[in-house]
Formats: sequence, C-alpha cells, structure tokens
Amino acid sequence: MVGSDALQSIVYNRGSLRLLDQRKLPLEMDYIDVKSSAADGWNAIRDMVVRGAPAIAIAAALALGVEVSDLDFIGTPGEAASFVSKKLEYLVSSRPSAVNLSDAATKLQTLVSKAAEYSKDSKAIFQVYIEAAETMLVDDVADNKAIGSHGAVFLQRQLANSKKISVLTHCNTGSLSTAGYGTALGVIRTLHSGGVLEKAFCTETRPFNQGSRLTAFELVHEKIPATLIADSAAAALMKQGHVQAVIVGADRIAANGDTANKIGTYNLAISAKHHSVQFYVAALVTSIDLSLPSGDEIVIEERSPKELLDSEGGLGKQVAASGISVWNPAFDVTPANLITAIITEKGVITKTDADGSFDIKGFLQPAK
Amino acid sequence: MVGSDALQSIVYNRGSLRLLDQRKLPLEMDYIDVKSSAADGWNAIRDMVVRGAPAIAIAAALALGVEVSDLDFIGTPGEAASFVSKKLEYLVSSRPSAVNLSDAATKLQTLVSKAAEYSKDSKAIFQVYIEAAETMLVDDVADNKAIGSHGAVFLQRQLANSKKISVLTHCNTGSLSTAGYGTALGVIRTLHSGGVLEKAFCTETRPFNQGSRLTAFELVHEKIPATLIADSAAAALMKQGHVQAVIVGADRIAANGDTANKIGTYNLAISAKHHSVQFYVAALVTSIDLSLPSGDEIVIEERSPKELLDSEGGLGKQVAASGISVWNPAFDVTPANLITAIITEKGVITKTDADGSFDIKGFLQPAK
Repeated sequence: MVGSDALQSIVYNRGSLRLLDQRKLPLEMDYIDVKSSAADGWNAIRDMVVRGAPAIAIAAALALGVEVSDLDFIGTPGEAASFVSKKLEYLVSSRPSAVNLSDAATKLQTLVSKAAEYSKDSKAIFQVYIEAAETMLVDDVADNKAIGSHGAVFLQRQLANSKKISVLTHCNTGSLSTAGYGTALGVIRTLHSGGVLEKAFCTETRPFNQGSRLTAFELVHEKIPATLIADSAAAALMKQGHVQAVIVGADRIAANGDTANKIGTYNLAISAKHHSVQFYVAALVTSIDLSLPSGDEIVIEERSPKELLDSEGGLGKQVAASGISVWNPAFDVTPANLITAIITEKGVITKTDADGSFDIKGFLQPAK
Repeated sequence: MVGSDALQSIVYNRGSLRLLDQRKLPLEMDYIDVKSSAADGWNAIRDMVVRGAPAIAIAAALALGVEVSDLDFIGTPGEAASFVSKKLEYLVSSRPSAVNLSDAATKLQTLVSKAAEYSKDSKAIFQVYIEAAETMLVDDVADNKAIGSHGAVFLQRQLANSKKISVLTHCNTGSLSTAGYGTALGVIRTLHSGGVLEKAFCTETRPFNQGSRLTAFELVHEKIPATLIADSAAAALMKQGHVQAVIVGADRIAANGDTANKIGTYNLAISAKHHSVQFYVAALVTSIDLSLPSGDEIVIEERSPKELLDSEGGLGKQVAASGISVWNPAFDVTPANLITAIITEKGVITKTDADGSFDIKGFLQPAK
C-alpha cells in the first residue's frame, strides 16, 4: 500500500494480517500473526502491539476480515451480519476510548446490516465486510497525505516570517500509528520534504515512551533532523525560542474542539500558550465526535500503575519505590482555547472571527 | 545526627564517611565508603551516588575532612591551608552548577586561610577544617527543620480556606538530598505531622527518576499518603483541583528570585500559574546567589544523552531509537514572576507590595 522503504505497522493480504509488535521497537522488528481470529486482534490492541487511533481501527477491522475470510459459516445473511456486528462490539471493548474504532465499527455494522437486506448468501455479507475493511486501509494513507499537505501549507502561511520551521511533537502519530505517513508526523514529513523544516523535536512521552521508541525511530529512519527531549524539558525548549509550533495528534475531538490526546498534551498546550508558540492538532475527521459538546464529556482511561513502577513503560524491572500509589491517566483533555487550529484531511479548521471558537460542525457539514 | 528511624544518606564519624548509593534505591540500601580520599567524594558526587544541593556540599566537605583526619602532612600551616584550598577547588569541579558546594568551599577556604595566620601547627589547620565540616552536617538538619516549620505555617495561612492541603513536589528534596528532613519535602513532612496534609503527589522526575525512586521511597517510608504521577500528568492533576500548592527545591536562586531547579520545574510553574495553584520554592539561603542579578546568568549543565536513551535513567538497557539526538538539560530556570514565595530557614520571602518583586537582598541583609 505504501512505498517499500516506508515502515509498515500493518501488513495485510486477503486472509492474512501481520502487525508490527511496537512494544519491541526500536530494538526488534517483530511481526505478530493475527490470521486466526478477531480475538488475536483484540489482544494485540489491548496489549498495545498496535497503537494509534487510526491504526487501531484498521487493525481491528482487518482482524475480523481475516477471521471471516475462510469461515465455514452456516446461517442466513441476517445471522452473518449479526455475527459480524457482535464481533465488532467485542473488538471495540479492547480500547473503549478510541473513537475511531467505535466509529468504524458502527459504520461497518450499518454496512453489513444493509447488505443483509438484499443478499441471499451469507458469504456475500462477509465479502462486503472484507472489501470495506480493505478500503479503510487504502483510504487511510491517502487521508494522512492530505493532512500533511494541508498542514504544511497552513503552517508556512502562519509562520511566513520564519525562514525555516522547527516543530515539537508528542507521542507517535506517524507510519507506526496509521496505515502509513501519519497525522501530526505527516505534517512534519511534508514540511521536511518541502525543505522548510529546520528540526523536529519529539518528547519521550512517558510512561510508555512512544516518542523515544517510535517517533524517534521514524524520524531517524526518514533522515529528518530530530532531537529527543524529556517531556518535562518542553517548556525550557520553548523559552529558548527553539520551536515555532507544537503539532500533536488526537484520540478524540469534541464538537467544540476540546481534544483528548496522550497524557502530557495539555501540559504542552499550556506551555505553548505561555510562550506564544502555535499549537496544532492534526487528526482524521473520524477522531471528531460531534455527539460530545465538550471535553468534559470525554471519559479518561486509566492505565496500569506498572507503566510508572517498572522501567520500559512497565515491561522492564522495578524502578519506583515499593508501595507507592500511582495515578496513570492515558489521556488528558486540551481545551479548544489553547488550540490554534485543527488540521484534517478535509482542510484546516480555524477559529471564527466572531468569538474565537471553532465551528467544527459547520466545517464538516457546510450549509448547502 | 537524626533519629534512628529516619533515612540517612550521609553516615559520618570522624575519620569515616559512608554515602548511601542513591542510584541503587529504592531496591537496595548500599553504602559506598569514601574514607580514603577526596577523589572518592568527587566521583560519588559526579556519578550521582549522592545528590541534592545541600547533601553534595556536606558530602564534599566531609570527604576532605576524612582525608585530612589521618594525613601525614609535612609543611607549614600556610601550606596546609593551601592544600585544603586546592582540594576544595577540585571538589567543586565535580558539579560546577551546585552553588551550595562552591559557596561552602569558599567559606571553608576563608576559614583555613585565616586559621593559618595564627596557627603554628599544620595539624591545627586540619582540625579547624574538620570541625567546620562537621558543623555543616549538624546545622543542615536544624536548618531543614526550620524550613519545614516556616513553610507549613505560611501555607496554612495562605490556604486557610482549605481544611486539608494536597501538595505536588518534583525531584527529591528530602532526607536523601540533605543531612536529614529535607527542604521542599521537609515542608510536606511538617504539614503531615501537623495533621493538615491531605496527600502528597510526586512526579516521576525524568530522566533520572529521582521522584519515583527517592521521593516515593521517603514518602512510603514515612507513611505519608502519596501518589506518583508522570511529569506530564501534572497539568491534568491541577485541572482536576487535586492540589493546592506545588513545592520544589532549588539548585540556585538569583538575586531577583529566578530559580534554577531540576528540569521540569519551569513546566510545573507555568501549569500552576495557569490553574491558580500556589508555587513555592523551599531552599536554604546558601542556594541564593546574590551575585547573579537574574536567572539569565545561570549556566545550565547538560547531562548525558544516555539518561534518555537507556532505561532507568541511563543505567538500564536501550529504550530509544538508535541514532536520535538528545537535548538533556539538568535544570531549567523558573522566573520569579511564577513563584508565590521562597521558603528559607530564616523565614518566608514574599513579594513586595510595591511592584510584586522579591527583595531578597533586603531579606538577607536587613537595614540596621
């Protein structure tokens, strides 16, 4: 699907799916075979073999696609649709806060349920499902490239006084968290290929180190000038005037623009505001959930204390004192007032002149 | 020097010095013997066996005290004073940015140089030196307790509307970084023993994990209700209203109140301001350097990239991608305008009503 030199976290051929085990990066490139069942996909998502909102949705959809591709199913088309639907619900439960996943599941459920109305063969239901899951993979790369292009053009216009632009990013939003190219990292990639990127800075992204392991890996792989910093060094970096913009991804965006993303994003947004550094969210429109009026409605998942207690994000040996309590939220919510603009594959959502708020609904559903 | 149940990072008897190897905490309590020479002290400070501004100064002074305690020195008192003076210069070079260390060295140099004027015996010079170094150890505990007491009284007055107070701290400023009790952690200790502490939160403190290893260890040891968070979770914690104050230590305080402290302190100060959370620096007056007009004059030490590239702050195995550049500043500078007050053993330095700045010089050298 993507060029042979690019990293691929999802390697798919009909009837076979392999996921790059991102927990082993950057030291090992090990693929996990998920051809047998959706349960393998569920485990891979829950255990963070695969991560990143778009990649999770695609991996889940394809895992079920592989299961139904050689399924010996006896039943009506309606029963086949119901089978798919239940499996999708199960897959959503692997990461309940990932809106791309639940959004994709809902769409696929609607699709198979409609197909069941006019199909006479349960095999045809599975065929429709498989093709839809495959299209998700193809479309994701195209959408990411559109984000990169919209974002790079917008940043250059906003920062026209800077000859070259240095950007700070958080977590991993690149080829490793999408089907290819990346969202926030896609913008950085496009700035670099356009010759206007001075340098990319990436945070370590505690506690699971997605920045030092994955983003740093991609930046080195793509030969993009890059420097790794501790999450807590971001404010000192901004104070020195070394970055003109922060670009992050999104786990979920509420109707008003409030954005849930990897823990630490909110910290960066506050620092960016304090230093008058622009702060961008780059995400697919599927990350936007118009049913949530604001970030207050976003439920924040808490992850295992082990991620802080043990080294290597919980996979290594004990580092912290025995007996200490831990608060380990996976995400935080950055309010819209700290966000300069939201970069999507459909264009850049800016604030309205009237009251300085985002009109995301108007952007997505323009008046005819 | 301190109660038998308290942690001791510096175990001293005349002619013998043992330092708790804090790199091995919280898993092992291993003491390193530095009885042979000042060079052992130099290595222990450089390699972070001992850390924390006050503890570094005391450990360096005592290391030399041990060396001269059984030294077979042939020379005049002036030569003995010169010997001590050069050794102190050498010890200062182990951590050039630690002002307590260079401040203590200067005072001890002056002392032995004056002693040389009236002494006829080089042994007497060493005796004067040893007694002065030992006094540093005794005084440090008393000074820390005074910080704790001044800070606890001040916080309770400032936060009179809160029945109980929860506090966030960064890095380690407790018994493990002083001769006992602690500076910022000393205030927390006093709040707890006074029954007004709801909870202490400590950051992990990347990249060397002083928070998760040392502060968490002390808090658990003292049975203080405590929770560990990732550095980047601090803003989310403040947004939830879970902390009323942030209290940190200081590596160096400029004449205007700008404070150099462990990387990440500035991040916390910006977040505290954004959430209207009080932000305190607790430090010995020896951390104040009136020769520096502002924080702009403070040179920031950079530490090894390994601290970010490998797990356990550089002591474990590779975590980050090979080939990535690293920016690893040891400290950052928090400007005085983000600091509510500075808590010292001589009292609390508050801002003047006139222009909202600190009059530190006036506090230290009141008009007669």
